Amino acid sequence: MVKGRRLHLINSHILGAFNFDKKCTALDEYRERGRQINIKLLHDKFYEPFAEDYKQVWDLMKEKEDLFNHVLYADLSREGLKERSQRQINHIVPKCNVTYESIQENPLRKLGMLTGIGSNDLISGTRSLVHFCLYIETVQNLGTAKHLGIIKRAYALKDYGCCGMTELGHGSNVAKVETTATYDHSSRELVINSPTPTAAKWWIGAVGKTANMAAIFCQLIVDGTNHGVHAFVVPIRDYETHKPINGVTLGDCGHKSGLQGIDNGFLLFKNYRVPYDALLDKYSQISPDGKFKSHIKNKEKRFGLMLTGLITGRCSIVIVSELHTRNALTIAIRYAAVRKQFGGEIERPILDYPVHRFRLMPHLAKDFAANMSMKLICRLYNGRFRLIDSEPESPDVTEFHALVSVFKALHGWYGQKAIQECRECCAGHGFSSYAGFAKLRADNDAHMTWEGENWVVIQQTSRWILKVVQGTFKGHPIRSPYLQFIYLNATKPRFSNKEQLKHAEWLISLFEYRCNYYITESLNKLQENGRSYQDMTVAWNRTQVHYLIDLAKSFGELIQLKEFNNFVNDLTKKCPATGQVIANVMYLFASHVLDQETSSFKNTFDAEQAKWIAETVDELCDEVGEDSVKIIDAIALPDHVIASAIGHSDGQVYQRYTQAVENAPGCFDPPSWLNLIHETRKAINL
Amino acid sequence: MVKGRRLHLINSHILGAFNFDKKCTALDEYRERGRQINIKLLHDKFYEPFAEDYKQVWDLMKEKEDLFNHVLYADLSREGLKERSQRQINHIVPKCNVTYESIQENPLRKLGMLTGIGSNDLISGTRSLVHFCLYIETVQNLGTAKHLGIIKRAYALKDYGCCGMTELGHGSNVAKVETTATYDHSSRELVINSPTPTAAKWWIGAVGKTANMAAIFCQLIVDGTNHGVHAFVVPIRDYETHKPINGVTLGDCGHKSGLQGIDNGFLLFKNYRVPYDALLDKYSQISPDGKFKSHIKNKEKRFGLMLTGLITGRCSIVIVSELHTRNALTIAIRYAAVRKQFGGEIERPILDYPVHRFRLMPHLAKDFAANMSMKLICRLYNGRFRLIDSEPESPDVTEFHALVSVFKALHGWYGQKAIQECRECCAGHGFSSYAGFAKLRADNDAHMTWEGENWVVIQQTSRWILKVVQGTFKGHPIRSPYLQFIYLNATKPRFSNKEQLKHAEWLISLFEYRCNYYITESLNKLQENGRSYQDMTVAWNRTQVHYLIDLAKSFGELIQLKEFNNFVNDLTKKCPATGQVIANVMYLFASHVLDQETSSFKNTFDAEQAKWIAETVDELCDEVGEDSVKIIDAIALPDHVIASAIGHSDGQVYQRYTQAVENAPGCFDPPSWLNLIHETRKAINL
Repeated sequence: MVKGRRLHLINSHILGAFNFDKKCTALDEYRERGRQINIKLLHDKFYEPFAEDYKQVWDLMKEKEDLFNHVLYADLSREGLKERSQRQINHIVPKCNVTYESIQENPLRKLGMLTGIGSNDLISGTRSLVHFCLYIETVQNLGTAKHLGIIKRAYALKDYGCCGMTELGHGSNVAKVETTATYDHSSRELVINSPTPTAAKWWIGAVGKTANMAAIFCQLIVDGTNHGVHAFVVPIRDYETHKPINGVTLGDCGHKSGLQGIDNGFLLFKNYRVPYDALLDKYSQISPDGKFKSHIKNKEKRFGLMLTGLITGRCSIVIVSELHTRNALTIAIRYAAVRKQFGGEIERPILDYPVHRFRLMPHLAKDFAANMSMKLICRLYNGRFRLIDSEPESPDVTEFHALVSVFKALHGWYGQKAIQECRECCAGHGFSSYAGFAKLRADNDAHMTWEGENWVVIQQTSRWILKVVQGTFKGHPIRSPYLQFIYLNATKPRFSNKEQLKHAEWLISLFEYRCNYYITESLNKLQENGRSYQDMTVAWNRTQVHYLIDLAKSFGELIQLKEFNNFVNDLTKKCPATGQVIANVMYLFASHVLDQETSSFKNTFDAEQAKWIAETVDELCDEVGEDSVKIIDAIALPDHVIASAIGHSDGQVYQRYTQAVENAPGCFDPPSWLNLIHETRKAINL
Repeated sequence: MVKGRRLHLINSHILGAFNFDKKCTALDEYRERGRQINIKLLHDKFYEPFAEDYKQVWDLMKEKEDLFNHVLYADLSREGLKERSQRQINHIVPKCNVTYESIQENPLRKLGMLTGIGSNDLISGTRSLVHFCLYIETVQNLGTAKHLGIIKRAYALKDYGCCGMTELGHGSNVAKVETTATYDHSSRELVINSPTPTAAKWWIGAVGKTANMAAIFCQLIVDGTNHGVHAFVVPIRDYETHKPINGVTLGDCGHKSGLQGIDNGFLLFKNYRVPYDALLDKYSQISPDGKFKSHIKNKEKRFGLMLTGLITGRCSIVIVSELHTRNALTIAIRYAAVRKQFGGEIERPILDYPVHRFRLMPHLAKDFAANMSMKLICRLYNGRFRLIDSEPESPDVTEFHALVSVFKALHGWYGQKAIQECRECCAGHGFSSYAGFAKLRADNDAHMTWEGENWVVIQQTSRWILKVVQGTFKGHPIRSPYLQFIYLNATKPRFSNKEQLKHAEWLISLFEYRCNYYITESLNKLQENGRSYQDMTVAWNRTQVHYLIDLAKSFGELIQLKEFNNFVNDLTKKCPATGQVIANVMYLFASHVLDQETSSFKNTFDAEQAKWIAETVDELCDEVGEDSVKIIDAIALPDHVIASAIGHSDGQVYQRYTQAVENAPGCFDPPSWLNLIHETRKAINL
């Protein structure tokens, strides 16, 4: 198919309706503007820690460039996109040497491969992640030595696995899943059932078409007693025939907002009998005499451990949503440097206009901030990954969950807003699929709600912070290095002149104060609501809006600012000029956060201070805008990975775009429904 | 095709994997909650002025329900969607008796038909609008008596027309389009040319497949002099063969973010000769001796008149984006009443949670506000429509442009935010195409940038306001009834207690003050920037962010609040109970606007006042949330028009949703690329 298209492309290039007789130099002209930076230095630091992993994956993509070029596949059917994705996976994954042993040594490498794939296409990234993380890590985290063979088969792609947690009727509230696994002592088997239609496992990646194995979460019932949710590893399709196994009904969840190439499916079980060893029995076992036992007596704690398999999925979102945001910004900024409109006889690039800079640059700043928190999560990942196995109840694991949760939510939100703004900034041409935003937006949209709905998941962060604070009331010291600011910056730093908004230390203390402000406000409101509603869950729920959500966000933004500052300091040591340019991006991030604040914290500033903030945002947007094409050159993914007709680094926007249009199927064809036009003409008498 | 699908549907209903043995009563239970309202009264008032037009169109849709049911068409190809749309148009339009005469009598009827169609599917709505408004009204506004035959043919659908304004290289800056129409006196013909590739007319609806006629905008060149942009009506396809006419190259613009069923296309001209009468010659003519003449000497003014054809398109956006927002809210609110998650042993509907109410209810309030401004625009429409013809330079026309511009932008933005939030509020299931959000979001997304890019178009409103203000400096009285507040509420009304946020008159004076605040701030900033930059265009551009954009928005919100208040007063007279419930929605609109304010105006409140606002938002979200299912019942479009599997008024969310999934093509099929799975297994040695 690709071959045919190529030929068409070559043919119509010769016959093309659009005759571009000279190269467009607008992007190169913009490249000359702004301050000089060390592009290689910024690039290398920005790509940490995945430079090598990405290079490997992206080089493989380059080998089959067409297979990874979205422009050529805009019209592909749902089934066609699934096939294409399988081809992509087959081309890349086996060459990446991701084995059980290599990943035990360096777990982060797996995330490197997966997000490298996902940076081009979230479909193939997610399909790989479902297998390599959700499936394998569930078996690994919750299983025991006897399951090692299953894990190794999976790493070698002999099996393709899925992870059946979510059900039609239960997403966030996993504790309430309806699927049951009832122990039958007579045969020492487990009998799996979906007692109602809403018990259907739903949205399960790889179930629709690919998987032959599944890790599934069911209520474990032994001798009539429900011991809560446990995980089981079971075949769902016959290995040879690929047909559903007796007792398993499965199908594809159909058309979606995006990601059509992922075969999300549903699973229903009817008296499906599996041997005892299907139980992933690290934390719970059934003794040979048929008794349930677990060294973790607390059912809720046991449940918490069941969910540890989600963490890598969330980490992948922290990483990949930043990559997609960056892709959108790359396209929009390059396009804005080329696109000219208004400005007198000689029209000016739209990137020159203050409004356009205001629309794009804060998102660039947020993308930098997200890159910083991504690095933090990656730095912690290997240690925490091992701890989840050896000491899952360690406070370091809880802290990691809290950090990942807030960045999972923040990065997804950053992405959705940025991609939408980038699309709008390219005006009409941003609406073309060949621009790339439609796919980026639809793909990133999934992050809002999968692997933990954002508004639910971010509550883990505020809960953790407040628990630590409440611990201090009982005299417990604050262990987490990320919470040392509590009580330290409890009074607002003096804000006496506009220039302070360009001092990192002052900004950090302001952000620390801001987070402390939300802690105090939240605690007060919680107390007030506790008095009004008695039930602490109700009081907690009533303290989300304007309090706990803002607390979690302000914490995430504080951590980002601190990490950003370390990044800038390090950069400055190596190249002061580059450090200065990127420091501006950091100041923009901070002042934009303050400017866009809608909570009562904003009213701790007086009108003059608020204006300083607004003016600083405007000025920095302008300055960063002038430097932005160079900054993008440093951080952009390679052209063949972004695969946008209007965002290419050579700046040939119109030529690539019209070529994409001319080569799309049916561009010059008459309507196949011409008869309907004739029919229309006859409908009314003149 | 539809028939085959129906059969499949019936078959698998019998064989279905999901066995729903009892009806879900959750939605009906929520209906019992909240305060009683007069649903019919609210419905009738909300549907003004289009109740009859919509009834006619929606009844026609009911006749062929499947043809308008998006759930059945999620997998349709681009070409298939175009065909489907033509079938929809053929089914509805000829029965609506939209003729030249009937529309001259009541121009608004046309908007009723078009937005009625668009409420179900923006594809068919837009395709009809392109012909009935963009094409016909361009010919009518800019042509003369001799063009009447063309208009009448178009009304009778003998011709299908398009409107070629935008070019590949020029969207917003229409004055700079490159296409030329050069007058050749020897034959009294016009010779049309696209001198460069970027001169291609681009995105032109109906060019891709349907149109045989075009109104096109070209630089008129007479005797070597460019007289600026003028419009011409020309054939582009042979009436009989439907092939492009010699000298015309045309094609389809390809795959888009959405709206695949619209055949947006491109047009290139090469020495295309058309007779003199192709010139729409109301404002400019070429005399028989070959001299250009126009009674409007000012080239810029003449150019302004050329754009009057855009106004109806913008009005349609004002209307249809509110309808789509309402559809999204209908789906999300009903789903939230049915979906249960957390809350203890017996789970609670997610609509019960304060966070969920905070996420949805402000959008419901904004949708009401948009419905109010929609009604205002419709009330003015007929008068202004005629004025555009008879007295296009009247200040009433300018005022109308300014009003339409701000609401075109605001409603589009409201819609994009609301639809995205609704989608996220339905979590995973919101990502399914059968929910309906994917289409709503992609369709509404087009409004951001077509018919005037929002950030550009909204400047017309601030420009108009400041011109009127500057007029007062010269002693001109303020004529517009919408600007009478200027100078009247120049000081901030006292804000001494929280209860004031539920007093409409006080809120209106606050919103008037707010708009006056932005006028003053903008004028000061303009002056300051004028001193810094000399060039007034630069100064103007540098005053957009934090000033002029906020001014325009605050004006739009003020008008919405006033209209909303009139609506509530009228409702209260007829039914005080209903009036009270909807007054809450209005207070929520107002307090949410104030709460989410990010500009320095927010800092005119002290911390206590800011908290009053936030608390009022929280309380009103809660109250409106409790009433929301009933409110939605009153304002929702019929089920067959919304066509969502999870938003149906009968509340059978899971049953309809699983049915949609089971009946989608290939649900139970094995992958057609099974060979690739086998290939994967062989890639690595175990």
